[in-house]
Amino acid sequence: MPSNQQIHLDSRPQGEAQVGNFKLVHSETPALQDGQVLVQHHYLSLDPYMRGRMNDGKSYAAPQPLGAVMQGGTAGQVAQSRHPKFAVGDTVVGMGGWQEYSVVDANQAGALRKVSTAQVPLSHYLGAVGMPGVTAWYGLVKICAPKPGETVVVTAASGAVGSAVGALAKARGCRVVGIAGGADKCAYAVNELGFDACLDYKEHSEPKALSAALKAAAPNGVDCYFENVGGWILDVVLGRMNPFGRVAVCGMIAGYDGAPLPLANPSIILISRLKIEGFIVSEHMEVWPEALTELGGLIGSGKFKPRETVAQGLAAAPEAFLGLLKGKNFGKQVVKLIP
Amino acid sequence: MPSNQQIHLDSRPQGEAQVGNFKLVHSETPALQDGQVLVQHHYLSLDPYMRGRMNDGKSYAAPQPLGAVMQGGTAGQVAQSRHPKFAVGDTVVGMGGWQEYSVVDANQAGALRKVSTAQVPLSHYLGAVGMPGVTAWYGLVKICAPKPGETVVVTAASGAVGSAVGALAKARGCRVVGIAGGADKCAYAVNELGFDACLDYKEHSEPKALSAALKAAAPNGVDCYFENVGGWILDVVLGRMNPFGRVAVCGMIAGYDGAPLPLANPSIILISRLKIEGFIVSEHMEVWPEALTELGGLIGSGKFKPRETVAQGLAAAPEAFLGLLKGKNFGKQVVKLIP
Repeated sequence: MPSNQQIHLDSRPQGEAQVGNFKLVHSETPALQDGQVLVQHHYLSLDPYMRGRMNDGKSYAAPQPLGAVMQGGTAGQVAQSRHPKFAVGDTVVGMGGWQEYSVVDANQAGALRKVSTAQVPLSHYLGAVGMPGVTAWYGLVKICAPKPGETVVVTAASGAVGSAVGALAKARGCRVVGIAGGADKCAYAVNELGFDACLDYKEHSEPKALSAALKAAAPNGVDCYFENVGGWILDVVLGRMNPFGRVAVCGMIAGYDGAPLPLANPSIILISRLKIEGFIVSEHMEVWPEALTELGGLIGSGKFKPRETVAQGLAAAPEAFLGLLKGKNFGKQVVKLIP
Repeated sequence: MPSNQQIHLDSRPQGEAQVGNFKLVHSETPALQDGQVLVQHHYLSLDPYMRGRMNDGKSYAAPQPLGAVMQGGTAGQVAQSRHPKFAVGDTVVGMGGWQEYSVVDANQAGALRKVSTAQVPLSHYLGAVGMPGVTAWYGLVKICAPKPGETVVVTAASGAVGSAVGALAKARGCRVVGIAGGADKCAYAVNELGFDACLDYKEHSEPKALSAALKAAAPNGVDCYFENVGGWILDVVLGRMNPFGRVAVCGMIAGYDGAPLPLANPSIILISRLKIEGFIVSEHMEVWPEALTELGGLIGSGKFKPRETVAQGLAAAPEAFLGLLKGKNFGKQVVKLIP
């Protein structure tokens, strides 16, 4: 069996996550049992939700255990198989974790899924046609439910989720306004993703300025808000929402590293009769087929051009993950584990 | 025509509302035109929403104009009529405002509604079988939608809305936990309204203490929260909510008088996948018949015993209203305008 490199969670962050919280470990892959498959990971997915699981506090998922492989989505190829439905060379996605190889009990429902790379590059199954894409779809379609002509705002607009929200909202005839950190990200959102406008929160770096910029970019107010960030930007967007606006709370990455960030004026929920709903895509598996069909179609027709930031080699994963939390990535952040 | 006393809004509050913001004015009622009705008000409704309308800021309703009669619900009797559907002596409810008499264009849809006092005292049409009762019904039934066995928490539990929430939730087989300010209010909620438990936030006067008390009173967690108060109590209850909990935001009276009260930890919306929705009952007129039927039935069968605090005479209205904002009332606050 091949030797394996893994990254373990070595300690829980005190405040900001650090490279020192992770540890690179060498191991051997065990021999396969009947029904098992050995997968060589080509790509590892890095996602903001992982930061929450590094803590020990109350959250929707059990914390990531200490001294164990960091959990996470992976895309790769079957290297050995003792399962009749998987053959060596099959391209597959699963939850293999931060390591080069994983042994998967392929009889377990949902543990391993074969995917075709005929139309879509393998890594996109971790992004636009994977968990982030379906996350965008669920929050936008099932919670925000925008009507044609309505205005949709999304934060982290150039990220894996935000870019898909934009594409899905444009497909529904909405005005789409992104918020992102940096002129380059905003240019990408407008020029390549087709957003109607994008606000750089580093340029409009305090609430009044961002609110004024949002008023100009969304002259009819905001009907739907897809929230990935939290903090003061949430306050600004809520203040510009129309009556009966809908807010899908997908992430609050701004507060993941430290003390909770307050919401300054929750009475706006009443004043504007808003509906605010938090969700986790893994609890809505029933929408995956419909969502992936639409997302694949948008990519196939060239209406949605997802971008990736690729780190090279497993050892680069911690640094790339910390960069993701700071918004250094551009589109979906993956780690490439093959040359 | 009879002479009329009115209370006008004389100035907008700077921070806390004061008696000096109101002014008692003497006037004459004008002669009736065809289609008009002169109503003598027996009861004037005092409601927390009126505080918001005293401000000039953005809200769901246009601000109460300065130098005009304070707007508000009234119950009374037809004193003169030039409308074929209303006869002298009919008992009616409408939005007559803070005055002894009002002239109503009875052809205007919804302006005046005849009610029967055979089963229900007239003043209850301003409370349990009026706007506050329907408010409770809409938030509980349409937003919280509790299932039998679930736990419902309501703040301002002994108030006009809160007491109705409790009765409606008990009728649905829920565990009902109230939060109110004072041992007497809590005793009323448990002993007369049939709440399973009631927490006095003056006894448990800081977040950790109230959270511990709530944990004991709601050992299976909180599924539904009917919010009338806002502020730190909102944070405490959100922290005890079960996954997929529902929050109906009806009022945030704690912040009406001053600066907005923040929500300390909005990330709980994501962590617990909560749905939070603000609403205003007047935008949901379609539910009134169903709601009033159920509320009337609960009162008729003795399952819901609404209580009132009655101030005497129009001049007492400002003081009674300020007391309502401070929670000095017990059940529905009305002003009686006849001897």
